[in-house]
Amino acid sequence: MEFGLICGQEKRIIRVHMIGETLQIGLVGLGTVGSGVYEALLRNRSLLEARAQISYAVRKIAVRDKSKARDVVIEEGELTDDWRDLVNDEKIDIIIELIGGTTEALKLVRGALEAGKPVVTGNKALLAEYGAELFRLSQSKGVPLYIEASCGGGIPIVQSLQNSLICNRVDSIVGIINGTSNYVLTSMEKSHISFEAALDQAAKKGYAEADSTLDINGWDAAHKGLILAMLAYGTPLDLNAISVSGIEDVQPADFEFAHRLGYTIKLLVVIKRHEEEGTLELRVQPSFVPLDHLLAKVDGVFNAIAVRGDIVGETIFYGRGAGKNPTSSAVLGDVVLAMRECRLLNYHSGFHPYAKETAVLPARETVTPYYVRFRVRDQHGVIADIAAAFARFSIGISATSSQEGETTQTGEPWTHLVFILHACKLGQLGSALEQIEKLDSVVSEPVVFRIETFRES
Amino acid sequence: MEFGLICGQEKRIIRVHMIGETLQIGLVGLGTVGSGVYEALLRNRSLLEARAQISYAVRKIAVRDKSKARDVVIEEGELTDDWRDLVNDEKIDIIIELIGGTTEALKLVRGALEAGKPVVTGNKALLAEYGAELFRLSQSKGVPLYIEASCGGGIPIVQSLQNSLICNRVDSIVGIINGTSNYVLTSMEKSHISFEAALDQAAKKGYAEADSTLDINGWDAAHKGLILAMLAYGTPLDLNAISVSGIEDVQPADFEFAHRLGYTIKLLVVIKRHEEEGTLELRVQPSFVPLDHLLAKVDGVFNAIAVRGDIVGETIFYGRGAGKNPTSSAVLGDVVLAMRECRLLNYHSGFHPYAKETAVLPARETVTPYYVRFRVRDQHGVIADIAAAFARFSIGISATSSQEGETTQTGEPWTHLVFILHACKLGQLGSALEQIEKLDSVVSEPVVFRIETFRES
Repeated sequence: MEFGLICGQEKRIIRVHMIGETLQIGLVGLGTVGSGVYEALLRNRSLLEARAQISYAVRKIAVRDKSKARDVVIEEGELTDDWRDLVNDEKIDIIIELIGGTTEALKLVRGALEAGKPVVTGNKALLAEYGAELFRLSQSKGVPLYIEASCGGGIPIVQSLQNSLICNRVDSIVGIINGTSNYVLTSMEKSHISFEAALDQAAKKGYAEADSTLDINGWDAAHKGLILAMLAYGTPLDLNAISVSGIEDVQPADFEFAHRLGYTIKLLVVIKRHEEEGTLELRVQPSFVPLDHLLAKVDGVFNAIAVRGDIVGETIFYGRGAGKNPTSSAVLGDVVLAMRECRLLNYHSGFHPYAKETAVLPARETVTPYYVRFRVRDQHGVIADIAAAFARFSIGISATSSQEGETTQTGEPWTHLVFILHACKLGQLGSALEQIEKLDSVVSEPVVFRIETFRES
Repeated sequence: MEFGLICGQEKRIIRVHMIGETLQIGLVGLGTVGSGVYEALLRNRSLLEARAQISYAVRKIAVRDKSKARDVVIEEGELTDDWRDLVNDEKIDIIIELIGGTTEALKLVRGALEAGKPVVTGNKALLAEYGAELFRLSQSKGVPLYIEASCGGGIPIVQSLQNSLICNRVDSIVGIINGTSNYVLTSMEKSHISFEAALDQAAKKGYAEADSTLDINGWDAAHKGLILAMLAYGTPLDLNAISVSGIEDVQPADFEFAHRLGYTIKLLVVIKRHEEEGTLELRVQPSFVPLDHLLAKVDGVFNAIAVRGDIVGETIFYGRGAGKNPTSSAVLGDVVLAMRECRLLNYHSGFHPYAKETAVLPARETVTPYYVRFRVRDQHGVIADIAAAFARFSIGISATSSQEGETTQTGEPWTHLVFILHACKLGQLGSALEQIEKLDSVVSEPVVFRIETFRES
């Protein structure tokens, strides 16, 4: 509905929804999440309308192939195979983007924002790659972009960072935000099986996609970590600045060592504010987590995100990180927010960058304790040689431990040799490892995991 | 700023804030939380204004005694000793109530809502006792009442229930929401000390107030549980309908038995929807929690709330449940929400009841497994007698265990005798226990804890 608004001498036209008017939704994509959202919009309508005090209708649904057989019955809304029909429809108030990918989705989100239509999306790859551009467009047009479903599935981390925790300077965010890799690690730990066997099991149970590369190599977690960092610090960030490693190198033996030392192994995204330097630390890697920390108990496909704020202290959010229903829950939370904010005169709570650009701390400058595992020839003097190399780079050793391995390709016996190192810069460790790798007694490249020390709370 | 709004033939005056206008805050109460909120408003102002795109000023602060020496320096805002000065000040846009109690606070909140001023409060006792009336007033006046700080300290449970999780029918909420009692239970468990010694320790560390009655007897948790249930089910509820017991009966021996069986003991609030009967289950009591559930790991003064929704599945929120800073974080999240919604034409997200009144399931009808501990004379046939009584009421026994006690007042030796019982109605258990108490061999009243079975997820 359009209003003439008189403010002193000024008069202008604004578009605002009043109670009783039905909001018109355009849905793009009817895949797993899209059909979940559509079904929930229809099934829980009376609940949603009562809670949100808003009535709504699905007006149009865009799909790639209109003739495709679907599980979902289309009771409401006209099917089209061109998303432009939604963007160009003046009656449509908000658009839900659930097609994934970064080509058509980019055109669609751009087009919708330019047409003045708020967008709800869960497309993390799109936001990680083109977020800076899309948030700028959202800001310049005054049209919100809602992104709760892009991180942590049904966990309300985006709205919590943007609203409930808004008064906090975020000291750190540490999260388990990829369900597939966490499922694989949990299986390796609990069932004592190899990485390959665990990945195979995940695929059979439907917890790993046909192509699980981005889950395993850490880049899916990196996409989400980048979005969380943008939300926490109010500034677009460069995906290439993240230091990322995956879980391919984790072996069952690492869990044995970890347990012996009071840890487990999780693929973590770590975001930290370095106030004095004015930089952010942003990294994804398999990390040692103390067994008595709550994050150590997050198993299988579940996600958890620990946020430390200067005022609230430590908070942790836990829930299902992916899948049709949890993601639908997040999308629908945003849809209601979008519908509510259609009634706002000149404010929306879609993300808008507000801070100066911030530098990301180079990975070599980041400091943690480490777990380093070598494969060494089973001979005298190996530990002394390696320890001497660490000493040359002023790296302290807090423990060392060994476990018999099998034989090398040349038939020699070898041993797993593990060092727990005091905190030092990754660059410092790298220099020491370069020297150690040249030792005759060291059979293969070392495997390095960080040890996360959670501050006392 | 007031506008003339023209909509077709209709013309009316509305009060809406535009970008650039400074919102005026009235703060009532400058105790622990009040001073925390005041300090954070001043200290994090640039961050808050940038994130919320709103500028604000503290206009007036009401305190009981203006001349009292305070730690906090008043740099902004006029001090008064009458909250009516704030309610009657036309320039004040929102009021923050942080005086506690239910007498003056009730008059203040009523007065502010009637004067059209949105209110932010963390007063759980007020909301538990007078919430139904105040929410009705808020609804009829169209003036929001924001209550994030009333439950779970800094944990954003209220906004999550009202916004992010809005599309979910809430199946259950299970929470540890009283820090003092959780600190006492954790000390008893970890340091093997008595209830009295643990409470004493909590008081010395500042984790128990001078009068900790409501923390220990479960009623503080009941207040918060009632508020969570109102939010989850959209209807005012009667505080007297809650079944409440405290932690006074927990003994170190109970932790030993619990551990042996794979459990720990927590004071839980349990809220469950009984869809078929159209009732709610609402209870607070010390409960057995499986050691491998995340709630079992919530120690000391921390709180955690597990919410199960029909769409999102299980989510858990964890953080500091009380104290100056965490509570300030929650208050400020609401203040920003209130400031934002001053720009809304005819909607606010303050709680407004939307559902039909719902009956609370009588405690005797609720069903769980139980842990029952008796003090019995150390003689033959005791177990058989008690087991026979359970059998008469069709109550299954899944385990029994005993531990030597000391001697009764008459010098006889006695024994702790524990039964783990299959799920049955509390009323059924009560009838059996009535008979058992009459047995000669039973020295004192039995202690009963519920065993919580978390559904597979």
